[in-house]
Amino acid sequence: MHSIEFYRSEFISFLEQKSIKKEPKNLYDPITYILGLGGKRLRPVLTLLSAEIFETDYKKALDAALAIETFHNFSLVHDDIMDDAPLRRGEVTVHEKWDVNTGILSGDAMLITAYQLFENYDGNTFKYLAKLFSKTALEVCEGQQYDIDFEERDDVTLPEYLKMIEYKTAVLVAAALQMGAIIADASEKEQTDIYNFGLNLGIAFQLQDDYLDAFGDPKTFGKQVGGDIIENKKTYLYLNALELGSIVQKKELLDMYSIQPKDPSAKVETIKEIFVKSGSAEYTQKAIEDYTQRAFRLLETLNISPDKKKVLQEFGEGLMRRRV
Amino acid sequence: MHSIEFYRSEFISFLEQKSIKKEPKNLYDPITYILGLGGKRLRPVLTLLSAEIFETDYKKALDAALAIETFHNFSLVHDDIMDDAPLRRGEVTVHEKWDVNTGILSGDAMLITAYQLFENYDGNTFKYLAKLFSKTALEVCEGQQYDIDFEERDDVTLPEYLKMIEYKTAVLVAAALQMGAIIADASEKEQTDIYNFGLNLGIAFQLQDDYLDAFGDPKTFGKQVGGDIIENKKTYLYLNALELGSIVQKKELLDMYSIQPKDPSAKVETIKEIFVKSGSAEYTQKAIEDYTQRAFRLLETLNISPDKKKVLQEFGEGLMRRRV
Repeated sequence: MHSIEFYRSEFISFLEQKSIKKEPKNLYDPITYILGLGGKRLRPVLTLLSAEIFETDYKKALDAALAIETFHNFSLVHDDIMDDAPLRRGEVTVHEKWDVNTGILSGDAMLITAYQLFENYDGNTFKYLAKLFSKTALEVCEGQQYDIDFEERDDVTLPEYLKMIEYKTAVLVAAALQMGAIIADASEKEQTDIYNFGLNLGIAFQLQDDYLDAFGDPKTFGKQVGGDIIENKKTYLYLNALELGSIVQKKELLDMYSIQPKDPSAKVETIKEIFVKSGSAEYTQKAIEDYTQRAFRLLETLNISPDKKKVLQEFGEGLMRRRV
Repeated sequence: MHSIEFYRSEFISFLEQKSIKKEPKNLYDPITYILGLGGKRLRPVLTLLSAEIFETDYKKALDAALAIETFHNFSLVHDDIMDDAPLRRGEVTVHEKWDVNTGILSGDAMLITAYQLFENYDGNTFKYLAKLFSKTALEVCEGQQYDIDFEERDDVTLPEYLKMIEYKTAVLVAAALQMGAIIADASEKEQTDIYNFGLNLGIAFQLQDDYLDAFGDPKTFGKQVGGDIIENKKTYLYLNALELGSIVQKKELLDMYSIQPKDPSAKVETIKEIFVKSGSAEYTQKAIEDYTQRAFRLLETLNISPDKKKVLQEFGEGLMRRRV
């Protein structure tokens, strides 16, 4: 087994070597641009790691890893258009640097090139990979649609919210891991276990994102702390506070979530207090811990050597330790 | 062999039976809507027809036919956003009926569901179909990008224009036919021949569209006659007039293509006259005839029974006879 850093740097070399100049420039330049913006390369690293865990050279998994990363970036390009976001990873978004039409069309081309990367695998492996990819990609679209729908709805339930973050975030992490296992010809049980490991870890990761958005350290948290509260976003903390809080707390929360004051600092503090006093903050921490532990328990059942388990365990712990 | 009308009605039954109600509604309703708007169902009919030409039950080709039609409609949804088009087939476009974000996301989901339809074929057939599909889909994106780029360019050449319409329109017609041949396990030569038959017919069809936009009968032509001229669109007629016309004609054409008068009727008449007098109209008719004949000559080399050739020939003639 290699280190996470090794897989990341091997993936980046592969990405750079693959990004050939193609015509028309206005279609392909935005693809090179967004894929070059960086990020943690979490998903492709998981695909490479997973292939080696199941005893196959990570090099065989590079194409699938790039497919996953290309799809992830496709979804960022289209999501940024939908959210009218000016920045991505501190740089201008594709639709800002070029225009909306370029963002739509280059995004479409990325989705197609992601599928093409599977062509380097033989007939049956190709089919398994493409099938998992399509199922996952469609779930990501559904997750994005639920997220949009929830903005307009006042009756979002906790199970609905969990399904949304599962689809929008966790299934791609899970599929990235399963793809490594598919390429390594792992058994169906192994594929399911590693998928579910990723799924639970992905949900824990997203819940932690919700938690840190309110309670993270402003010095180390990448985004503006309190951003979700300022935007009246119905997060796990918010939905749980409505569930667990007293009638008074619930009323205050609903009132606060109907306003957008110029100086939001008092609103942010009041709501954070409700999140704590209602028990939602604690409950959310508990949920993060539960999903993380569920992921680690799945690791236990996997028939792989202890040193491999350790790599996955450390990866998971590293992921969940961030920015707290 | 069945009639074109039979294949069309079988395809529509299959489409209706497949369009199940899925959640989230805001993602899937627009897909059902656009696929239900109708149209000639040209491409899926060709896939069914092609399967039977190569001795396989058309029923086996229904999934691939629906994939082709779903992709075609995906490209219409995204193109209509890019063109800000209010109407499609006489009905409101998806982004008008819902909104732009819905158009983007539902379109993405359509592209993915198109791939999923190939999953009903076994490993190797799946791979052949998905590979041809990806190549074709990417070419359609490239064609759309060239079309956008050409709007800003004053130095578009005729070969560039032909490549643009080949990618934007003809490759999908060609791929629709080849998919039927793939499903029927036709030889590579047969696949190439039927693909090239579709490619040449598709180019002929698009050139005819350019021609009819200026010279079609207003009574039978579906769109506004002169629409391309009013919008200063660099069509085959325009590019050829610049190539073939005298210095005076060329100057007048360039002048006319820089204005957008409120009442465009005089402009339309003047430019049509230039198209005729420069020899461009005749040259374009000749090109349409050439591409059509090239398609029919490819039919001759195909090792299929005369009655099957006749069906394809009549299909091509029917297509090229429209609205003239």
